[in-house]
Amino acid sequence: MRLSRFPLHTTKETPADAEVVSHQLMLRAGYIRKLGAGLYTWLPIGLRVLHKIEAIIREEMNRAGAVEVLMPSVHPAELWQESGRWQQMGEEMLRFKDRHQNDFAYGPTHEEVICHHFRQDFRSYRQLPVNFYQIQTKFRDERRPRFGVMRAREFIMKDAYSFHMDREDLAREYENMRQTYARIFTRLGVDFRIVQADSGNIGGSQSEEFHILAGSGEDLLAVSDSGSYAANVEAAACLPPQTPRPAPTQALEKVATPGQRTCEQVAKFLNVPLTGKVKLLVVKGADGGLVALALRGDHQLNEIKAAKHPLVASPLTFAAPEEVQRVFGCEVGYLGPVRCPIPVIADHAAAAIADFVCGANENDHHLRGVNWGRDCREPQVADLRMIVEGDPSPDGVGRIKFYRGIEGGHIFQLGRKYSAAMHLSVLDDKGQAVVPEMGCYGIGVTRLAAAVIEQSHDAAGMIWPDAIAPFRVILCPIGMDKSETVRVAVETLYAELVAAGVDVLLDDRGQRPGVMFADADLIGIPHRIVIGDKGLAQQQYEYKHRRAGKPEMIPATTAAVLEKLGT
Amino acid sequence: MRLSRFPLHTTKETPADAEVVSHQLMLRAGYIRKLGAGLYTWLPIGLRVLHKIEAIIREEMNRAGAVEVLMPSVHPAELWQESGRWQQMGEEMLRFKDRHQNDFAYGPTHEEVICHHFRQDFRSYRQLPVNFYQIQTKFRDERRPRFGVMRAREFIMKDAYSFHMDREDLAREYENMRQTYARIFTRLGVDFRIVQADSGNIGGSQSEEFHILAGSGEDLLAVSDSGSYAANVEAAACLPPQTPRPAPTQALEKVATPGQRTCEQVAKFLNVPLTGKVKLLVVKGADGGLVALALRGDHQLNEIKAAKHPLVASPLTFAAPEEVQRVFGCEVGYLGPVRCPIPVIADHAAAAIADFVCGANENDHHLRGVNWGRDCREPQVADLRMIVEGDPSPDGVGRIKFYRGIEGGHIFQLGRKYSAAMHLSVLDDKGQAVVPEMGCYGIGVTRLAAAVIEQSHDAAGMIWPDAIAPFRVILCPIGMDKSETVRVAVETLYAELVAAGVDVLLDDRGQRPGVMFADADLIGIPHRIVIGDKGLAQQQYEYKHRRAGKPEMIPATTAAVLEKLGT
Repeated sequence: MRLSRFPLHTTKETPADAEVVSHQLMLRAGYIRKLGAGLYTWLPIGLRVLHKIEAIIREEMNRAGAVEVLMPSVHPAELWQESGRWQQMGEEMLRFKDRHQNDFAYGPTHEEVICHHFRQDFRSYRQLPVNFYQIQTKFRDERRPRFGVMRAREFIMKDAYSFHMDREDLAREYENMRQTYARIFTRLGVDFRIVQADSGNIGGSQSEEFHILAGSGEDLLAVSDSGSYAANVEAAACLPPQTPRPAPTQALEKVATPGQRTCEQVAKFLNVPLTGKVKLLVVKGADGGLVALALRGDHQLNEIKAAKHPLVASPLTFAAPEEVQRVFGCEVGYLGPVRCPIPVIADHAAAAIADFVCGANENDHHLRGVNWGRDCREPQVADLRMIVEGDPSPDGVGRIKFYRGIEGGHIFQLGRKYSAAMHLSVLDDKGQAVVPEMGCYGIGVTRLAAAVIEQSHDAAGMIWPDAIAPFRVILCPIGMDKSETVRVAVETLYAELVAAGVDVLLDDRGQRPGVMFADADLIGIPHRIVIGDKGLAQQQYEYKHRRAGKPEMIPATTAAVLEKLGT
Repeated sequence: MRLSRFPLHTTKETPADAEVVSHQLMLRAGYIRKLGAGLYTWLPIGLRVLHKIEAIIREEMNRAGAVEVLMPSVHPAELWQESGRWQQMGEEMLRFKDRHQNDFAYGPTHEEVICHHFRQDFRSYRQLPVNFYQIQTKFRDERRPRFGVMRAREFIMKDAYSFHMDREDLAREYENMRQTYARIFTRLGVDFRIVQADSGNIGGSQSEEFHILAGSGEDLLAVSDSGSYAANVEAAACLPPQTPRPAPTQALEKVATPGQRTCEQVAKFLNVPLTGKVKLLVVKGADGGLVALALRGDHQLNEIKAAKHPLVASPLTFAAPEEVQRVFGCEVGYLGPVRCPIPVIADHAAAAIADFVCGANENDHHLRGVNWGRDCREPQVADLRMIVEGDPSPDGVGRIKFYRGIEGGHIFQLGRKYSAAMHLSVLDDKGQAVVPEMGCYGIGVTRLAAAVIEQSHDAAGMIWPDAIAPFRVILCPIGMDKSETVRVAVETLYAELVAAGVDVLLDDRGQRPGVMFADADLIGIPHRIVIGDKGLAQQQYEYKHRRAGKPEMIPATTAAVLEKLGT
């Protein structure tokens, strides 16, 4: 491609309303333009990246035996009413009426639609297993769309849905998809981790996320230093302490702690470590009453794990301060398990300490030397806390280290949640009707482009992996309009690279070297060749990889360039 | 692809609610499935055709120098308010509010959006010309969606928008797109015509449609038998009669015609030819009053041409019968130009006859021997009628023949309609601000697949052109499970065709020949190879082209098969 014929709009100014690097760079490099809140147009250079990502996904999904379909973006409400999600989905689902006043939604996901088609055409176990995928536009009406295409409202997803006669076959295809996703992310050229995940409101039993590691990632990942375990912190289990609870050594004592409400304040005031404090959090119970969750002073509640406890209401809802005051007769900062008026569930770590400090259930007072079983009832024990760095890995091998990641893919074993609700049924080999097992598998296609930039950039701009770079190599001729030697050399090289099937960009705009180099760096082309009279006199081109600090001289031949490209 | 691993769902029954052949066959052959009114899912075999059509369009648009972008489907209302079309577009534009109660539409076309992006990035004549295209999903809320993907609500379009400094450059790009479209339609392998068209509510000066010829086409095309002229009948001009109006020979006479209202009834009753009758149609005038349009008895009004007459209101609106009764004092069936209470505009052909018959503006009476200028005022004359077969071609060469066509593409010279409304401006080489000229160019991608089927099918099913067939060749082994010879032969041929890059489908389902052949014919694979013990004993395969009546025997070699495919 000749840059003189390719509309590229770059700018040096960092856009004021772009918070993250990928959004800033995509605007500065002319990859995307905003149309409205969470609505972006992909300009030619950006769309080239998107198409390359799509091609890799399509190749690998086909190779894995999945078959491509294309479902509509507009869904009749009836299907969503059938699954019950018309009510469950909140404002994130964009709903509207057509000219005949019938209800529709702009599909945020396609479980209902694929189930509808499945039941029209599938009757027998002989037709299973099957895995349908599509690369298609979705809409989620985010309350606060942000970070450009990272959390846009309209976006492109690759979503896939598989159907199976039993759990074993679902598990087999889940593993097939897991390996396929690993191949896709490897081919994209990114550093990623597969982590255990919470299934969220998609539902199902098992799920894993594919995260692109990036310091700016919204998700925190707990990874064992042995490499044997990785989970989104929200899904990471915590092992109970290995050593038994010490025996009590102190007597129970009430102490005045005027105005000391937080664990940090109390620990400092009483000169005890944070790990010797127990705090109570009051939440709604599954039965409509209240439940107290006890955590060690240095630990944080994991709301997702807590909400899964059978005694706790889901989604997790904290009691209002007035309600706590009414039930406990004191403020939130002074709660404790001794003479606690509601049931207590203690995190493993909180239940494992002795002689601890906690609130006295009386304003401006705490208790010290408190012991479970002696001063209050032994609590129910559960895994309620957020994992922390240094914790033993939940699989027993190594210790936990934290990384930040951007979710690029998510795979689920759905089981029969949707197939049962939508009345799917196929006959098995004995003629018995069976509700098929389902899996679903998603990749955020548009978001991936931004995630790669978050992982791979520097002060000058983007740094694309070869596989998804808009162009693999850029040719920068110096003084092309003045030197016939340069002109002939660059045109010959350009023609030969095109003939070799290389995605090459020729900067024939007649700009100064500084402008050419700044643009090449900003748009992130991995390989740069400079052709000038000085080098040509020595029969040399200047070569620089986008990551390299300094350029190097290479022989002025197409073969030498192809060698640098690894082609 | 092995058919045993490819979900294909065919049926012999013609679906009850499918009116046209393409819709019936696409459902029967498992190309599409209905999700709701005007909403269709593309199943794997159908999507393969769609992708091949898209690839051809993309290649040719790129070759023509257009650059691909991808714009959102959801458009903020503000943009459409700026162009004035938020009010002008009727119920066909699907509108909705997001969670913050802001107005949006599902984009039915993208002139406003591309103009918005243009004005953000384009400042100078040096950046022009530019032609942006996208292959993207649109929605038009048709009152009565029908014919499957032929007139769906959600559909895929290739739309392109070009910007130019002046009309000459717009005309150049228009011609470039015209040739590009001709190449695309030629590569698709369809019989098409380029016809002059009405610009409709897109606006602009010049436009042409690309029609796929098919007996079931919704559009009637007027084509000169010399090949020098072609137009959609709604846009076809009619030449005025070449011979001057004859002199009057009859006296004016009022005759009773009780109950004779239509031209046909009156002509028969009075024993005159239909061509000797003049009829009046009453429509709203541009000034709010009424206007009478006079046509020869055998001619039909062309509403689009009539609506463009300066005295006639646009869109064309017929007067209600009660209004006619009030103004004329008689029923609609008895109107005539003599003592007509409203202005009369006569079609050229109606103005060119003498001694004609017309209504007497009195119930149950007509006049005969009527002559313009003598018995009533000379009318204003204009081109108001539909062209008919046998008419001289408007370009003066040859005579008109009718064809039926399906609109597959439409190209427009928009001029400055949108660029002015959206305040686009670029500086020319003298530093003067110029409003750019625009062109726009559309292809109905999903509709094309149906249109090709309408043109190319027989009683057994679809007949795909090689270029866009879901698979080019199907291998049908006879008794593959019983004969090792057949199994080895077909697997070898399959592997060698795959290696040669041929899109081959292997029917390894173990079905009877009749079932295999019926499916192969229904899904329309152009080439069929049958491999059986009998043929192999003679070292022969059976070959049949989908269009051929009988199969033929060819040598049992991959080379012989490739030769048949023309590869």
